[in-house]
Amino acid sequence: MKAAISSLISFRNFDLHEPSLSRSIFRQLSLLLPSQFPVVSTDAKANGANFTSLHQKFRFHSIKTSPIMASSFNPERATSPPAVPPPVPPVTKFKIGLCQLMATPDKQRNIEHARKAIEEAVEKGAKLVVLPEIWNVPYSQDTVSVYAEDIEAGGDASPSTAMLSEVSRRLKVTIVGGSIVERSGDKIYNTCCVFGTDGNMKAKHRKIHLFDIDIPGKITFIESKAIAAGQTPTVVDTEVGRIGIGICYDIRFPELAMIYAARGAHLICYPGAFNMTTGPLHWELLQCARAVDNLLYVATCSRARDVDDSYVAWGHSTLVGPFGEVLATTEHDEAIIISEIDYSLIELRRTNLPLLKQKRGDLYQLVDVQRLKSE
Amino acid sequence: MKAAISSLISFRNFDLHEPSLSRSIFRQLSLLLPSQFPVVSTDAKANGANFTSLHQKFRFHSIKTSPIMASSFNPERATSPPAVPPPVPPVTKFKIGLCQLMATPDKQRNIEHARKAIEEAVEKGAKLVVLPEIWNVPYSQDTVSVYAEDIEAGGDASPSTAMLSEVSRRLKVTIVGGSIVERSGDKIYNTCCVFGTDGNMKAKHRKIHLFDIDIPGKITFIESKAIAAGQTPTVVDTEVGRIGIGICYDIRFPELAMIYAARGAHLICYPGAFNMTTGPLHWELLQCARAVDNLLYVATCSRARDVDDSYVAWGHSTLVGPFGEVLATTEHDEAIIISEIDYSLIELRRTNLPLLKQKRGDLYQLVDVQRLKSE
Repeated sequence: MKAAISSLISFRNFDLHEPSLSRSIFRQLSLLLPSQFPVVSTDAKANGANFTSLHQKFRFHSIKTSPIMASSFNPERATSPPAVPPPVPPVTKFKIGLCQLMATPDKQRNIEHARKAIEEAVEKGAKLVVLPEIWNVPYSQDTVSVYAEDIEAGGDASPSTAMLSEVSRRLKVTIVGGSIVERSGDKIYNTCCVFGTDGNMKAKHRKIHLFDIDIPGKITFIESKAIAAGQTPTVVDTEVGRIGIGICYDIRFPELAMIYAARGAHLICYPGAFNMTTGPLHWELLQCARAVDNLLYVATCSRARDVDDSYVAWGHSTLVGPFGEVLATTEHDEAIIISEIDYSLIELRRTNLPLLKQKRGDLYQLVDVQRLKSE
Repeated sequence: MKAAISSLISFRNFDLHEPSLSRSIFRQLSLLLPSQFPVVSTDAKANGANFTSLHQKFRFHSIKTSPIMASSFNPERATSPPAVPPPVPPVTKFKIGLCQLMATPDKQRNIEHARKAIEEAVEKGAKLVVLPEIWNVPYSQDTVSVYAEDIEAGGDASPSTAMLSEVSRRLKVTIVGGSIVERSGDKIYNTCCVFGTDGNMKAKHRKIHLFDIDIPGKITFIESKAIAAGQTPTVVDTEVGRIGIGICYDIRFPELAMIYAARGAHLICYPGAFNMTTGPLHWELLQCARAVDNLLYVATCSRARDVDDSYVAWGHSTLVGPFGEVLATTEHDEAIIISEIDYSLIELRRTNLPLLKQKRGDLYQLVDVQRLKSE
């Protein structure tokens, strides 16, 4: 995580009047080869450390092809620090697997069940697998502390992440590990761990926006009674691109997705578990909105529905493309969705609809507080 | 417009830790009288000048009823200046009329046609009528300067706004007058005029984000070749509440809707004319997203579809409620949609889903540049 942010910050001397040089290259390739965009096997390491050198390498080959000129209204100021373009990803086209799973009261069973689901997704070609929010136990505020795992201690103290590490290394797959209940000191968090193909944990996102909601007669849930809120937005460079992480209720806050886009994310993953009231009302809408407003991919993975559970999940895990189009989805039962991501479409859509160049930095500005402070 | 902003600025000494006093009152009333919220016939003038005194009047009666406590993560800092609550509106429940009209090459005919449509909407009970983007002439970049009107000069120099003024005064109706092509000095704008029930123009919004788009083989349109961009977001206090204005492509920029919400808008009106590519892809999605992310009403009004026109509009004018729910819509033919707005739902939804209290001002901040400068 630290590495990812550092790589972004190295862009601070970037010429603001040419904000899309590496994107221009990416765009030209995608125009030349719209359906066969090459896998870029350069020195673009997953941790993004060589992002700047890659950029410099391409700089002198850049030409401007867009018929639409950059705005004179300071679009680069619409985000502070200025937005960085997505890096050239290690792989452009690949399969994602969304494992919509049920969480029974038997934690060990759930861990084995998730392991098998990941194995099945990989067998079907997935290079990136996403799990649901709190996939390893039923999500009840009364029992969270019983089930909490000490992720930093690892090993027996965190059997769920031990499994994710083992399977990611063995199968050479990137895993956005849904979320589990984490104990850290005297605090409890709702935490998503991201594992690289070497089995190492690359990032840990603690749910930032807690689910405190009160719709009388429908749903009342005060997550903050039991859970502490995370303090850091999370963008991580992986072997399948730069990924922003949100957990469930985090999706309701457009600012988070916008700062992820400005940090150059290709994809935002939201493990989640919307309920039977807000699910049909808002789940798909929010995913599509985050995707089209930011012209990037959005993947969600929900728990499967268990009508006997105290919290009944809506299901409907979904992959959304950068024009807000639903590429793959499911109903509420357990399912493994396999669908294709093609990052060259991000550039194509941003050429079609150059929203990022048309923002009015003279009228509004979204500040990414932590990225600004770290510069 | 100036008056509206002044009234907002008078809130600068507002206690940030009790950001919802007038909202609390509003909420309590709505809980007591969910279906018969009284018309507030106080000194809350349409121009908002007495907003502060109204607030002070209610201050001592305020109690907190929400089971959800305010976040400790500086939600008030998530917008700068801090968000103000919507004022108590002069009327809480009323009918809106969306006039989806065709624009023929005969401008005088179009003006008379729009006059009749507004009359019909008012006959059916509408207190607020919205017209489409460029409703008075066909929208072609080649002819905009021919059709442009000098709105400030008025009278014969602007027959379209003269009609809107006459009909709003005669029928005591508030009109969000779609948009027309405006000439001002040597510049041409795409401009929306808002008229109050006294026939006076209360606000003029010039389209801020111009429609420069290039989807090869589908649609290429470079609006900025002929039109200059507006320089000011527009929120106006009317006899039917505080309304933010955007024109068509303005809807693609979530920041604009978010600063309108932070200025206390009850409703955002977007006259528009999406096309046959982006219409089916994004028109409804964007409206619903702006509504649910900001928990306010959104009304759109499109031109009707004319397949012989050089620019074929998608139609589908729509009213969306503060939970992102489509309350009324239509297909692509000419139509007058009459539907009910109930502002008490805004408070109810913000109690259900207290997003504004849950924002993370410690992690992100949206700056409203002009409001900040004017403080």
